[in-house]
Formats: sequence, C-alpha cells, structure tokens
Amino acid sequence: MNSFGNIFRITTYGESHGPAMGVVVDGCPAGLEIDIGFIQKEMARRRPGQSDISSPRNETDDIEILSGVYNGKSIGSPISISIKNKDQQSKDYNSLENTFRPSHADYTYFEKYGIRDHRGGGRSSARETANWVAAGAIAKMYLKTKGIYIQAFVKQIGNIAIDKNYDSLDLNTTDNYITRCPDAELDKQMQAAILQVKKEGDTLGGIIQCVAQNVPVGLGEPVFGKLQAALSAAMMGINAAKGFEIGSGFSSASMKGSEHNDVFENVDGNIITKTNHSGGVQGGISNGMPIYFNIAFKPVSSIKIPQHTVDQEGKETMIEIMGRHDPCVLPRAVPIVEALTALVLADYYLLAKTQNI
Amino acid sequence: MNSFGNIFRITTYGESHGPAMGVVVDGCPAGLEIDIGFIQKEMARRRPGQSDISSPRNETDDIEILSGVYNGKSIGSPISISIKNKDQQSKDYNSLENTFRPSHADYTYFEKYGIRDHRGGGRSSARETANWVAAGAIAKMYLKTKGIYIQAFVKQIGNIAIDKNYDSLDLNTTDNYITRCPDAELDKQMQAAILQVKKEGDTLGGIIQCVAQNVPVGLGEPVFGKLQAALSAAMMGINAAKGFEIGSGFSSASMKGSEHNDVFENVDGNIITKTNHSGGVQGGISNGMPIYFNIAFKPVSSIKIPQHTVDQEGKETMIEIMGRHDPCVLPRAVPIVEALTALVLADYYLLAKTQNI
Amino acid sequence: MNSFGNIFRITTYGESHGPAMGVVVDGCPAGLEIDIGFIQKEMARRRPGQSDISSPRNETDDIEILSGVYNGKSIGSPISISIKNKDQQSKDYNSLENTFRPSHADYTYFEKYGIRDHRGGGRSSARETANWVAAGAIAKMYLKTKGIYIQAFVKQIGNIAIDKNYDSLDLNTTDNYITRCPDAELDKQMQAAILQVKKEGDTLGGIIQCVAQNVPVGLGEPVFGKLQAALSAAMMGINAAKGFEIGSGFSSASMKGSEHNDVFENVDGNIITKTNHSGGVQGGISNGMPIYFNIAFKPVSSIKIPQHTVDQEGKETMIEIMGRHDPCVLPRAVPIVEALTALVLADYYLLAKTQNI
Amino acid sequence: MNSFGNIFRITTYGESHGPAMGVVVDGCPAGLEIDIGFIQKEMARRRPGQSDISSPRNETDDIEILSGVYNGKSIGSPISISIKNKDQQSKDYNSLENTFRPSHADYTYFEKYGIRDHRGGGRSSARETANWVAAGAIAKMYLKTKGIYIQAFVKQIGNIAIDKNYDSLDLNTTDNYITRCPDAELDKQMQAAILQVKKEGDTLGGIIQCVAQNVPVGLGEPVFGKLQAALSAAMMGINAAKGFEIGSGFSSASMKGSEHNDVFENVDGNIITKTNHSGGVQGGISNGMPIYFNIAFKPVSSIKIPQHTVDQEGKETMIEIMGRHDPCVLPRAVPIVEALTALVLADYYLLAKTQNI
Repeated sequence: MNSFGNIFRITTYGESHGPAMGVVVDGCPAGLEIDIGFIQKEMARRRPGQSDISSPRNETDDIEILSGVYNGKSIGSPISISIKNKDQQSKDYNSLENTFRPSHADYTYFEKYGIRDHRGGGRSSARETANWVAAGAIAKMYLKTKGIYIQAFVKQIGNIAIDKNYDSLDLNTTDNYITRCPDAELDKQMQAAILQVKKEGDTLGGIIQCVAQNVPVGLGEPVFGKLQAALSAAMMGINAAKGFEIGSGFSSASMKGSEHNDVFENVDGNIITKTNHSGGVQGGISNGMPIYFNIAFKPVSSIKIPQHTVDQEGKETMIEIMGRHDPCVLPRAVPIVEALTALVLADYYLLAKTQNI
Repeated sequence: MNSFGNIFRITTYGESHGPAMGVVVDGCPAGLEIDIGFIQKEMARRRPGQSDISSPRNETDDIEILSGVYNGKSIGSPISISIKNKDQQSKDYNSLENTFRPSHADYTYFEKYGIRDHRGGGRSSARETANWVAAGAIAKMYLKTKGIYIQAFVKQIGNIAIDKNYDSLDLNTTDNYITRCPDAELDKQMQAAILQVKKEGDTLGGIIQCVAQNVPVGLGEPVFGKLQAALSAAMMGINAAKGFEIGSGFSSASMKGSEHNDVFENVDGNIITKTNHSGGVQGGISNGMPIYFNIAFKPVSSIKIPQHTVDQEGKETMIEIMGRHDPCVLPRAVPIVEALTALVLADYYLLAKTQNI
Repeated sequence: MNSFGNIFRITTYGESHGPAMGVVVDGCPAGLEIDIGFIQKEMARRRPGQSDISSPRNETDDIEILSGVYNGKSIGSPISISIKNKDQQSKDYNSLENTFRPSHADYTYFEKYGIRDHRGGGRSSARETANWVAAGAIAKMYLKTKGIYIQAFVKQIGNIAIDKNYDSLDLNTTDNYITRCPDAELDKQMQAAILQVKKEGDTLGGIIQCVAQNVPVGLGEPVFGKLQAALSAAMMGINAAKGFEIGSGFSSASMKGSEHNDVFENVDGNIITKTNHSGGVQGGISNGMPIYFNIAFKPVSSIKIPQHTVDQEGKETMIEIMGRHDPCVLPRAVPIVEALTALVLADYYLLAKTQNI
Repeated sequence: MNSFGNIFRITTYGESHGPAMGVVVDGCPAGLEIDIGFIQKEMARRRPGQSDISSPRNETDDIEILSGVYNGKSIGSPISISIKNKDQQSKDYNSLENTFRPSHADYTYFEKYGIRDHRGGGRSSARETANWVAAGAIAKMYLKTKGIYIQAFVKQIGNIAIDKNYDSLDLNTTDNYITRCPDAELDKQMQAAILQVKKEGDTLGGIIQCVAQNVPVGLGEPVFGKLQAALSAAMMGINAAKGFEIGSGFSSASMKGSEHNDVFENVDGNIITKTNHSGGVQGGISNGMPIYFNIAFKPVSSIKIPQHTVDQEGKETMIEIMGRHDPCVLPRAVPIVEALTALVLADYYLLAKTQNI
C-alpha cells in the first residue's frame, strides 16, 4: 500500500540501496508554477550529511522531474520525481543479511514477505521520506497559492524540552539552528546531548510540533476523513513515530469541559475561539484557527552497542550494527513532518471543493 | 467520506435525531457464523442509559440485519445493519438552532456545508459510534476464528489514573466495573469524580488503553498502510479523541535507543521480544507480540454551565446546553475503541492474504 | 465490492428475498433540494408489474430516506435510502435450492462463496437495480442544477430494431410507449414479439441507447478514469449486459480515419464538431457534444422451458424455473441505464472541480 | 486518475515527448520470479518501428527496474519500471501548438486543464500503453504460476474480417503474422489494405479478440466489481477503443433465451457449459470456461490529409498532421489488450483470496 491521499495522491517506491527512490504525484491541479529550486531546497533540509549530528551518508538528493510539468507549470498529469541513490555502502550490511536488528523492520518484513532486501533496511528505510519531502514541496507550493503555510520545529530531544507552544516562538528562525529547535540555548544543549550519545554509540528520541496557519474553515471530511485522523495517519506512518496528539492532546485527559471548551468570539467580523485546545479542528473539520499537533519519536533503533537478537533460523546471537546512522532524527524529521502535513492539507483542500452544489 | 477500511469495509449513515443509524459491512468473508446475540451484547456495552454516570437517553439499540446473512452465516454480500433512533428529544435543541456550541462541530459543519441538522449534533453526534460497535462485533467474530481478541479498559479519568499497563491487570473483569477501570478502588474514585462534575454541570476526560492479543506476525501494509497508522486514524476519528500513542508512545521521546530497543529472544521456538516498547508493531507490521496503545479523550463539550459563544449571524451571545449528555464518555468508549480495533485488524488480516504468490 | 463512484459514491445492499434493499449515497453535495416525488417516479418506471410484458412481482418500491436530508435538502452527510421487499414468494425457489439455473449466477456464487441465498437469485438478482434507480434519481437532481439531462430508450428488441439514432427521435415521448421504444409502429411490433415469446416460456434481448445532453467540456479523468471507461464499467455491471459501444462503436472498425474524424467548427462562438462519431468524448474527456452509447442485453436467462443442468453435487438433472420473470427486461432497463449514467456524470462533475488551482 | 486496480495496482506517468514513461506496480505478491527478458519481449511486441505498417518512431523501449525486485524476485514492495523516451521529434508538432487535431484529445485537454503539452499528444499519447505492457508482463508472470494464460489476436481490419472465434484458430501462431491475424491469407489482405491507406495518408480501424484460458471459477466481485465490468473499463480506456462485448455480445440482442442459455454439463467430474455465450463469466464471476471478448478500435485520428479545424482562439483553420503515426494500430494493440487483461485478472485473483474465512 504505497499510495497516500484521495485527490492529491502520491505513490512512492524505492529501497535504500536500490538504484533510485521516486514519487508520482497524481491529482496536482493544473496551472501550478513548479519551482524546482524550492523542491531542491526542501530536499536539502532533509538530506543526510547536513551536519555532524546527522548521518554522514552523502546524498545530494538531486531530484529529476520526469513528467507532468511543461513550461514550468503543472499540466494536470502525474508529476513523477526521481531521486537517485548514490552513496550506498551495501557491504556495511553484509553481516545483517541473516540477522534481525532489534526494533527494526527486519524480522517483520522477512516473516511477512518470506524474502527481504536487507541492505540499508530496504523498503523500510527512512530514505523513503525523501519521496515525501519532494512531493510535499509541491503540495506546499499549491497551499501557498491559498495563503496556507506550515512550520514544524523540534520541541524536545531526550530530556531537553522547550516549554512553549509554537505561538511563543519565532518559527522563522527554526532553520538557523542545527537541531531545528528555535531557541539558542536549548539548541546548544540538545546538540551537546546528541553528540554525547553519538560518542556512546547510542541514540535519542524527542518531540516535534507542527503548526499550519491560515487554513480556511471547512477542511476535513466526516466521519472517516476527519482532519485529525488524516493527519494522525500521516504522522504515525513516519518511521520512528510513536505518538500523535492534536491541540490539548493527552493533557486534555485531566481537564474539565469548562476549562477545555474553546468559546467563540467575534473579533472584527472574524469568528475565532478564545483558546485553541481544539488545535484548529472541531468535529473533524478545520475551524480557521491554527492547526497544531505533536509527534513523539522514539530513539533511533540503530545503535552501535552490541545487542542480543536472533537470526533467520531463530538462533540467538549478538549483533553489531555498522552503517551510517543518525544519533537523533528529529532535526531532519522537521521537513518530513511539514511535507506530510502539506500533502494532507492539499488533498483536503481539493476534497472540500466538492462539498457544495 | 463515510466509508472505512479496504477489504473489510464499512459505510455508515445516520443523524442523531433522524429515523435510524446504520452500517453496511462490505467484504466480510463468506461462511462466518453471525451471532446476533453477541452483536446485541456489544451494543448494550455502548448504549446510553446503562448507568447513572452515562447519558439518560434511552436507546435499546436493537439491531436489525437487512442483508448478507442467510441461515445464520455470512454469504459474501454486504451485511446491512439498521439501528432505529427511538428516544430523540429534538425540542431540547430548539434553542441551539442558530447558535454554535463551543468545542462542538456546529460551527464547522455550518460553515462547511452551508446547512446543518442541529438536532443532537446531527451527523457529528457520537450516536454514530453505535454503527461502529455493530460492525466491530462482526469483525470480532471473524477475528475470533483466528484466535485474535481485543480488550480495552479505562486507564484514566480526570486526575485519577491507574499506573499499570494491561499486562498487570485482569482485563476479564473490566465490565464488572461501572467505569470499566478494572481496579475496584480506582473505579470507586472515578465514579465519585464523575458524579461530582455531573453535579456541577461539568465533564471529565481520560485515557483508554487497548490491547490486541494473539495477532499473528505480518499484519500491516508498508509504507502507507502501516498498522499503527491505520489504528491511529481509526482512533483519532472517535469524536472526543485528542491523542494516540502506541507502545512506549510519548515516553519514548526521552529514552535512549539502548533502553528502548526490544531485543529478540527465542523461547521454545517462538521468536519474541524481551520488552515490548514497540507495542507489537515494527516497521508498520505486527511482530506477534501484544499490540497495545492509548487514546486520550478530551472532556465532553456539552456542559450545563452557561458559556459565551456566537450565533449564525456572528453575534456574540450566551448559550446553555440542554439535552442529555454524558458527564464522561470513557466507560462507554471502551467498546467503541475495541470495535474500531477489530475493524482495522480484520481488514489487515484479509489484506495480508494477498501478500504472497 | 458493493460501492461505486469516487466522490459521488454509492454503497448498496440487499438480497431479492431478504427484508430490504438499500443504498447509501455518500458525497452528494450539500444544499441540493431532494424531491422525493421525483425519486418515487423514477422507481415507478423501473418497478415490476408495470405492464403485462413485465414481471408480475408486485413491488411498489416505496422508498424511505433514513439520513442525509433535512428540511428537504441534502446536508452533506450520507443519504440512506431503504426499499422494503414485500412481495417475495420464496417457495417458488425451493426446487432450485440445490440446482444451478443455466446462465444464471447460481453456480458461480456457490463456487465462489461456498454458500448462497438461492431465493430469487439472492444478491445476484436484478432487484439490486432498484437501489441504482433510487440513487440515480438523486444524481439526476444534481445534474439538473447544471442543465445536464439524460435520456435512454429501447433501440432493439429481438429482431426488431429502430434504424435511427437519438437525434432523429422524440425522446420526450419514450415513456408513452410500453416498450420504451419511441416509435408507435415498432413499439407495437416489439410488444407483440414479447408476448409471443412469453407464451412460449421464452425470452428476448435487445439494445438500449442512452444520450446525455448539455454535458460541459471537461468531464473525464485520464488515463484510468476516462469517461467512456467509467460509463462502460457502469453499463457492463447491469445484470444482462453483454456489450457497450460509444459513438460510432463497432461500426468504426470498418471506417477510414478521413471518414471517422469529427472536424471542429466554430458556430457562433461555440466550438462543436461537424459529426459526432466520438460520441461526445475525446481523449477520455467530454467535448461538449452529446454523449451517446449503446448497451446490448442478452435475453433473460429465466425461461420456463425445461433445461439440462447440474445440481450442487455435480449430478446432471433437468430444471424448470418457476418464479415471476420478465420475458424481456429492456423496457424496465431504460431507467436503470439512465440512473447509472447520472451516477457517473455526477461523480465526474465533482471530480472536475478539483482539476485546476 | 492515473492508477488502476485494487490490490495489484499500477500507477503510471509520462508524456510522449517528456524524458521518460514509467509505471509503479504496487501489490505484486512477494516471491515472484521476475524475468526481465520476458518483459522486454513483451515490450518488443508493442514497440513502434517493428514493421513497415507501424509508426517509424524508433523506440527500443528498454525497461529499467528501479525497485521492488531483489535477487531476481519480487519482495512485496512497489516495482518501479522506467522507460526512457529517446526518439522524440518534437519540432514535428510545432505547427500544432495552437491548433486542435480533429478526434484527438487536444481540445478536451486544453479546455479541461487550461494548459497542455502539445508535443506528440502529451499525456494523451498512446505511448502510455508502453507502461501497461511492462506492468502487464509482470501480471502475466504471476498468472502463469496459476496456469492462467491470455492470448489476443486481430479479428478485423477495415473491411477484412476473420469469421471465426478463437477456438477455431491456432493462437500460438499469431505473432508469426505481421498484422497479428492468425490466418495467412487474411494477414496478407490486411497488410495490403493498410499499405493502401498509408499511401493515401489515411488510416484503418478494426477489432481485436482476446481469450483468457484456465481461469478458475470465482474471479469477480459483485456487484460493482463484476469481472466483465472491470475488463470493459480496462479495454475502453485504450486510446482508440470504441466498443467492448463479451461472449455473445451484441449478437445476443437478437437471440432467444432458449438459444442463448449455456446449459451445464458434468464431463468427467468437471462442470462445464455446453455453449459459452456467457464468455466465461456469469453473475460477474468467472465460471471456469474460457473468457473471451472483442474490442472495437476506431481508425487512427492522425491522418495526413488536410482537415478543417479550429485553433486555440476558436478561429477556423486547416491542419496538416506531420509526425510519425501508425496507419493502423491493431497489430500493436494486441499485446496492450493482453496486458490489461492480465492486470485485471491478477488483481481479481488476489481479491478472491479474501472472500472466505
């Protein structure tokens, strides 16, 4: 099941150590100006090797558009984007050919399909997310024509957390920080924490917050296409995601209705809510307030510390993972979260066009 | 978008105060024994009026099967289940006809569609979940033929939380407790807390945990049909859900890889993991361990305390919500969570049948 | 697979001798006036017992709307329509319980599902088409708001054929004729032919032509949602349909390009084609000309003449079909063809709303 | 809408004069041996330049597999196939940039999307069918593991028709004939007819018959996934297709039920039908008999004879079509028809795996 979306719909392919990754974007409205430089810039935000706290695998992730764009504009036919894999070092994985890495997809893929490409995790590799960022860049360009924009940032890495929501931060500065936590002091602390676990061969998890602004009222398709459900499905499909919460999220569990309810106000003719515990979505439909949500990421499973495991025959054994890995994926996951958000919103924007006679 | 699932696929309809709710179950495998008594029993677990901490709306929720079952067995054609609405008190909603209840779907539905059925929330009502429970009962019967079973329970209501996971509790006793928290002492405290807010005209939220046992290795369809993504979409579609986490969830954010990884072991020929931070899913595919996850529920939006709001013309006004509402939906949400889980697992069980030549 | 359509999407259920048939119409745009009288009128055009050349099964086919309509208008939620089965005479089918009727679905259903409802053909019965006509009536109402209208008529029954296309006939008179062939002389001949085979216990097939007028340029979604492909799939799903052709159809096989090409003209600012061999569709997209196509129907399989067959154990035997059947379904199939056409066009009209930024 | 299929599902992209065509095959079962030589052989059957009655555009149509295959076998992840466009001569189309070719997709694409790639027809080009043949080759390999095979042949070109069905012909010889009509004498006549119209700058249409043998009982998903409906949708999506008929097809219209019915027989324990007017499908489900159907193709629209038309501003003008075109597509369409048939059958084979508990 390698397609995502209803109208604005992507289909992706590619294994980590195969010749190429790629994505086909179907349903992109015709007449959209496609800025290849912008797509490439988004790719650069995700690419490995961008700093000493990310994987040293050196992929420039140059995209090639094979279809769907003519004279700089989308023409309504599918936009195929190809991203070559260049810096595979498959021999790093030779020792893993018959052994399952703990908390990886090795075991489940093998049991499910009876066969697997063990090199770099094959299809289960987070290299797949390059496809999402490329497609998400197109979705962002479309949303931009409607004034909608999306910004994610790192809210927590390990035990270091920023105790503010998006609205108390300057999200335009996020990319100035290596960790993509828009706070100079915390950025430094997070970097130090990452370098420390890197030295230990260990890894860290964290939390990303994402906010979509200027989303009009009316996106979301009850009852099984509620906007928060679509966003959640998208986010929980990210390789290391373990949790999703929108608006007040888990903290709502201990609130009373009288505290939690977002009362309506009319401010100069605009209906807004005084608070935004709803996170911009009510009844599964955007209400015009900022949409914001958090995603929890587990620490990267590829640690360099020897671990117990079993091999394909079921024999217990030890494993040492070579290969090049991120000690913490959060900084690189920021553009991934934004891309998926853009894909969902572009799709639901288009769906909403069909709701009235 | 009122269908859910790929192969085992439901389509639902019905407004809270319309003549009937209903669900069409398509793709249920042929030859399944359909135990109507079991469906009805599941309906009883969800129905309003089951205790003094639930809404007094009196719906017996008798189901009627209109198709797809012959001589007590499914025949491969769609199973249509109808549930009549009997105890509507639409006049309770007269005063809401032109006014938007805070944190409800009134405003967004009206803005999206330009028209709405205000009585009881219309299509946005949680009465829709009766459809899910009916369909989920059929999914449960199917999963039972594979040995798979699902148990949810209340883990937190307001500030009262059980500090244990499913594996330290006796989930067979859950239904003995009015709150569906399987701990005699906490059940009492939770009941008291609910009755207290009820008296105040206020409401409470909480957390439900769900566990699916005996799920075979191999359910889940990378990359956009990962099992946790499908579960998450299902759960985040529940009316008051604000968060979802699987396995270690949000707590994984502050763990190290070396702590979090679930190392494999061979116990008498069975490959298991020593810990289960993964929550039974790795790489989007079930790994044979129990699948467990939490859902956060906000407090019910329908409080009896007067609130500020605006009306359809945008004029600020006060609102007092009449109607019959639950002070806390958690106890009744337990069978809903189970039903959706069953629907996802039945669907993915069938999908997995197509994965090999 | 009991759903049809992408945005304007129906899900149907019901067996011929079960308690009810029904259809859920999802994706109908909000704000549409729903004229129940019109739906009922369409049902009357299809219902059995309408003349002495149709099945005497007496079904009034009263529809009941269970959801999705409030104050006479669609509200954007699914519209559920229920049609009770009232005049089943299941005992007529007792002798068929273990025997397969030739050219019916008895054998294939039994082999596929391992179980079947033999009464009246169960799910394979053409009674299902009542659902399509009900849903199609809603689609017609939607299309009417866009000026689009659809007219089908009987072009051939047995060996009696009208040698004209829709544009030389007065299609507003079609319903004045019992056979729905809008030619007084041929209508008489066709009636006589039908009554003759009825007397013999035999049946007749024929051809229906359908035309959709005022369809705007731009409906159709290349490359796998070409308009003619969608229409064809719909028509070939009708119980007795054996062939579909659009525009010049099979006759195009022996034409030259220079004869067949539809050259463009500008008539008072309107781009039209001089001929319409394309049948109103070019490159899978409507071109603004009338869309017309033919559907071939085989003779009804239920004949009263004894036939050879086998039973469920594979033993050869003779069969005599009781039950009430049409000697020729063409007259009743006219509204069915129109309904499916309306469903396709409404769906593609909505899809086309998403094609541009 | 550039995806086709439910489980075995393809997504295609590419414009005639863009850098590449391509197809992503999702849902191919894991463990299938992928014979690249076979795919390439199928491509050669479709490629232009294969004879002097086909377009001289010289495309070798070398395929490149970018994903989904490891050590010669499918691994359950999407198989991406890329086909580079090499011999575009876009300048041939300069004069068509603002003018609409009659009976082509130029006008409808432009009106629908507001923008078009006029070079070689862009997305509407039959070059797209290269994708289908590549994907169809994989489907054929899968079906081969089940013993199912598919053979199409040319039955009519212009006025020259073979008056026999597949069962009186030796379909193993089809590829020996340049026209792919498996009759030496008619092949010669058809060649002569094609060369004659080629000289005149004109074109011919015709009819292809396709037969699928060894299809087990049970493929087809009532009521909206009937096998004939799926096949029809596939075939009517071919660029020049104007008609589809299965089994007795249009000839059934003038038959009586007693002539048309296929009575069952038990031949050595196998249930077969004495005749096969049903074309191997009853009630939308395969009945184990050979599945056969015809597709009517209009003559190619690209004629070299000057034609009246209008330009983008609506001004009437004359057009002379340059470019390299087939005087008759039938011979090259044979592998296309087979490929689509294979895609449908592979998909429905997999769907049928889910029908029973």
